Amino acid sequence: MGTIGELGEFGLVGRLTRRLPQGPDVLLGPGDDAAVVAAPDARVVATTDLLVEGRHFRRDWSGPYDIGRKAAAQNLADVVAMGARPTALLVGLAAPLDTGADWAERLYDGLADECAAAGASVAGGDVVGASEITLAVTALGDLGGAPPLTRSGARPGDVVAVRGRLGWSAAGLALLAAGGGGPAELIAAHRRPAPPYEAGAQARGLGATALLDVSDGLVQDLGHIAAASGVRIEIGSAALPVPEILGPDGTRHVLTGGEDHAFAGTFPAEAVLPSSWSAVGVVTEGAGVLVDGRDPGPGGWDHFRV
Amino acid sequence: MGTIGELGEFGLVGRLTRRLPQGPDVLLGPGDDAAVVAAPDARVVATTDLLVEGRHFRRDWSGPYDIGRKAAAQNLADVVAMGARPTALLVGLAAPLDTGADWAERLYDGLADECAAAGASVAGGDVVGASEITLAVTALGDLGGAPPLTRSGARPGDVVAVRGRLGWSAAGLALLAAGGGGPAELIAAHRRPAPPYEAGAQARGLGATALLDVSDGLVQDLGHIAAASGVRIEIGSAALPVPEILGPDGTRHVLTGGEDHAFAGTFPAEAVLPSSWSAVGVVTEGAGVLVDGRDPGPGGWDHFRV
Repeated sequence: MGTIGELGEFGLVGRLTRRLPQGPDVLLGPGDDAAVVAAPDARVVATTDLLVEGRHFRRDWSGPYDIGRKAAAQNLADVVAMGARPTALLVGLAAPLDTGADWAERLYDGLADECAAAGASVAGGDVVGASEITLAVTALGDLGGAPPLTRSGARPGDVVAVRGRLGWSAAGLALLAAGGGGPAELIAAHRRPAPPYEAGAQARGLGATALLDVSDGLVQDLGHIAAASGVRIEIGSAALPVPEILGPDGTRHVLTGGEDHAFAGTFPAEAVLPSSWSAVGVVTEGAGVLVDGRDPGPGGWDHFRV
Repeated sequence: MGTIGELGEFGLVGRLTRRLPQGPDVLLGPGDDAAVVAAPDARVVATTDLLVEGRHFRRDWSGPYDIGRKAAAQNLADVVAMGARPTALLVGLAAPLDTGADWAERLYDGLADECAAAGASVAGGDVVGASEITLAVTALGDLGGAPPLTRSGARPGDVVAVRGRLGWSAAGLALLAAGGGGPAELIAAHRRPAPPYEAGAQARGLGATALLDVSDGLVQDLGHIAAASGVRIEIGSAALPVPEILGPDGTRHVLTGGEDHAFAGTFPAEAVLPSSWSAVGVVTEGAGVLVDGRDPGPGGWDHFRV
């Protein structure tokens, strides 16, 4: 199979694009100066993230397929968190020239499969040589005529609810850092998050006033809603979904763990939330985030723990 | 001012976004899970490039402001080469934590100013720590109701024409590599290309059948049009715009130099091209690119030179 350096830019691009099925939203796919993607709403939701080896993933802890799925997931979740439907991904790959071409192919398989799970496609990108592996992922989406679900719409009296796994990725990461023992489901959850992509449209239908995906940890991310909305968010730890598998540090993982890309939102008090959403707190007057009435500290846990 | 590591992610993002004016196409700018950008045509043109320090720029050869302008220019030019109007840029910056915050600020000033020159804005992005500086730039644009100007529409009998400087960046790079003597305009052209952004709409108005921006060199990029269109392109070296300032290697720089982001297109033979376009060749039956009737070789020059 050889290395990406042996294939060269055009050879590698040809090899990778052949693995990328194009969905109906991609009007012009890879191969020209730019892609053309449907934006029927006449607005496009767009977000970009960089993932750097050693900081955002480790090749000895995750295979290329899972790295691709995770890189796609974190950007697709950002689009969904705006209440939008993901349409396309653009992917830049910087990698040492001695990286195996098969490694790159498996990476793109993961990107393509995660896109397919969200109804999107990898519509374009770039590959360049570099001394470390960096992935630059841009996701696009369509709002379908609705206003974007921002972080700034939470109002006192709203209910705070979450959908999706929380703390699983952090618990899995802790296991990997400790040598890899423990429940395989947790390690799998760290390697490949499973955001419930239907949560964006669902939240919109439920009248959500604010929504985001939990990438830095529940307390920290709810702090973004509190700051943008000019409100306080009060969480009750007893209401948190903390399954036994998360172990003795479960509550901490749920409050501070990122990377599961669960969705957290605020809803009018009268909203009837289906069981896929867990009500974990309320919006009040004030600022910041309280857990059980106390300031959990900058790490989302520090003071709380004392 | 300090380093980006001292500021931290949120401090740095706040500092940078304050420097980014938002144009009318940005409906929701930095600060949420994603940006929202106008796409009045109901399609969005999207392209992404990675720029890696040491491969695509050198900090000892270019200051951060020029690096920002160049990074924006190369992506904005890709949007224009589709016949579209650039609307927004998303920028990912990976950098060592000891990078000066003022360096990052000047980089974003350059990105913002180049966007403004093309009628676009920096609508969002990401900053992360890394061991080398990498810029990931995504550009979006609007087609205004017209079909995209692809690489695949050239037809035998068309005229091949270019607009914008060719060879200037390569000549400037050669001067820098040789120690920096020679015309300052060439070095400036290498540091900061000046794509004629109006060329896309103009080419569309002139009935262009194919268009791209010259990023890898005229011969190599015209080869992309030839391959995508299933035609041959025949260039006459005497018709090339080779100003005296380019020196004795001028013709080679014009044929093989990239990074000026001039535009090259094919037009119906009856098109009346304004003086801003230079007719440099014709489209014929066949394949590949000939210069003065000969195959210029894989580098766009090698055989030609012999």
